[in-house]
Amino acid sequence: MKTLGRHVIAELFGCDAAAIDDVPGVHEAMLQSASAIGATVVASAFHRYAPEGVSGTLLIAESHLSIHTWPEHGYVAVDIFTCGGLDPRPGLNLLAHAFGATDSRMQEIVRGLPEHVAEGMPWLPTDVTILGPRSAC
Amino acid sequence: MKTLGRHVIAELFGCDAAAIDDVPGVHEAMLQSASAIGATVVASAFHRYAPEGVSGTLLIAESHLSIHTWPEHGYVAVDIFTCGGLDPRPGLNLLAHAFGATDSRMQEIVRGLPEHVAEGMPWLPTDVTILGPRSAC
Repeated sequence: MKTLGRHVIAELFGCDAAAIDDVPGVHEAMLQSASAIGATVVASAFHRYAPEGVSGTLLIAESHLSIHTWPEHGYVAVDIFTCGGLDPRPGLNLLAHAFGATDSRMQEIVRGLPEHVAEGMPWLPTDVTILGPRSAC
Repeated sequence: MKTLGRHVIAELFGCDAAAIDDVPGVHEAMLQSASAIGATVVASAFHRYAPEGVSGTLLIAESHLSIHTWPEHGYVAVDIFTCGGLDPRPGLNLLAHAFGATDSRMQEIVRGLPEHVAEGMPWLPTDVTILGPRSAC
């Protein structure tokens, strides 16, 4: 399988504190995010911290989605790594909406063997800032 | 908890095909990697693909370690995201040695709320290439 992959690193700000502190809700949003990008989930792990905060990962046939939440700051750190030509951006958009993010920041890294990476171009410029969840992608 | 985190994205090249196609071995190397950076593992998920390749994640109290392997290319994609001031580099070095990597490439992203990120500086320059596993960090 070609190694070319896209890894989008996103920060979501102004998120709903209760929504991002709820493991079942975060898990469900992550599953919907995976579905939105056409990924196949193969394994998962989630954990809730005391006194607050959730971490979770979905392993997908095309790499992974991971999330870490800081309810006390309304902050969510997400990364979505996709191989096989999947576009991770609809998944990020879904999470931004699900958590009511008011702002976001994203960076994209093209990953893989050098000969494969040379064929890939990031969709996003480095260090892009996009205001508002509706324009998150 | 302060949101400031360091996310190191690494590519390992020239890895031993058998070593990176073995779930128990990859899992053990990941646990040793987490130990090397002083992280506390709270959950994990691993998966082996057909005909080859392994994906895995360790959720740690300080965020996560993830890995994806392409034995047919000797290629491993790793990312280590640490909060709480942990240095992810010893963990990457351990994995490079464990898999016999002959070359590596790393990038570091400082993550978190803008006011926290402003306090952080990446250890690595953007898009750094480091030759040889012994100098991987």
